[in-house]
Amino acid sequence: MPRLGRRPGASGSRGAILRAARRKFADVGYDRATIRQIATAARVDPALVLHYFGSKDGLFSAAMDFPRPDTVIPGTFGAGLDGLGERVARFFFTMWESEQGEGLLGLLRSVHGSTKAAAMMREFIGTELLARVAPTLSGRERELRAELAVSHLIGVAVLRYVIRLEPLASTPAATLARRIGPTIQRYFEGP
Amino acid sequence: MPRLGRRPGASGSRGAILRAARRKFADVGYDRATIRQIATAARVDPALVLHYFGSKDGLFSAAMDFPRPDTVIPGTFGAGLDGLGERVARFFFTMWESEQGEGLLGLLRSVHGSTKAAAMMREFIGTELLARVAPTLSGRERELRAELAVSHLIGVAVLRYVIRLEPLASTPAATLARRIGPTIQRYFEGP
Repeated sequence: MPRLGRRPGASGSRGAILRAARRKFADVGYDRATIRQIATAARVDPALVLHYFGSKDGLFSAAMDFPRPDTVIPGTFGAGLDGLGERVARFFFTMWESEQGEGLLGLLRSVHGSTKAAAMMREFIGTELLARVAPTLSGRERELRAELAVSHLIGVAVLRYVIRLEPLASTPAATLARRIGPTIQRYFEGP
Repeated sequence: MPRLGRRPGASGSRGAILRAARRKFADVGYDRATIRQIATAARVDPALVLHYFGSKDGLFSAAMDFPRPDTVIPGTFGAGLDGLGERVARFFFTMWESEQGEGLLGLLRSVHGSTKAAAMMREFIGTELLARVAPTLSGRERELRAELAVSHLIGVAVLRYVIRLEPLASTPAATLARRIGPTIQRYFEGP
């Protein structure tokens, strides 16, 4: 049933634009990607991209819009501090190895060439990870500890998905989550 | 005393080229940096850059040529497994916060846009870090454990020096080394 008067197929175009945007941001980074290239890849008019997302910023944010962690790994944050480290690691690898992985690669690639993308990644880490983790933590230097935990995940992503360093790149995600989980847990538990 | 028939000032030009290269690679990454731009910044002829370094590859490698860890933090690798994690972390931050930091930023920035730079970073991590750490380690999955340790350091560098996430970005390096050292040590010690 069409909602809010959208044309039939409109949500299909929107999805195609988001997929094309994730791929383009992953390939060339935020600064070098253009609305025009993304529209061409999605086989839509550039005006439609602007209609849906307003600007390249808006498109980038939408392309980076991840599902809530609890819908991916039930109880990721809601189930308390016990086992939180491994659940967060599992959520992280599940995202990277899903369709969202290209979006994450685009984000990681973009931050190195663009202060705007760096600001977006700060915001992403703040809202998607730290704001969810921090309420669960107690003790001194909660923020710093949460950031150190996140830093480990991001470093693993750089070596595994960008540099493709072996054996890390071909170790199963579940094995990595078991390895990394306790490390993250120690940062969460503090001090 | 001039060596090997070099003109007086030649080593000064070489140093100026390396400094200009580190800055350029840090600013725009490996792919977008050109020999011509670097020569201009160093106030030398592009032919001199090629004379010293042969190619952009050769220049990049030379610009990434770090001092031996033991000259920076005495006994980094030579003093055995005890305390190795914190010594490696101190070495890492000392490098980042020295003149070499620009080279590291260039390397990190470049890997996202270039498979060649990614291969260089694999080699760099392999020869500068893993080959030095691995002989000290024992137990199962030594390589994976060493890579997980390195991943943590690289992730901290991304958040601290690229994204500049607070409070991590302004925490003193010595504090971070004390925080991260035990984590790295656990990966080094196994199982």
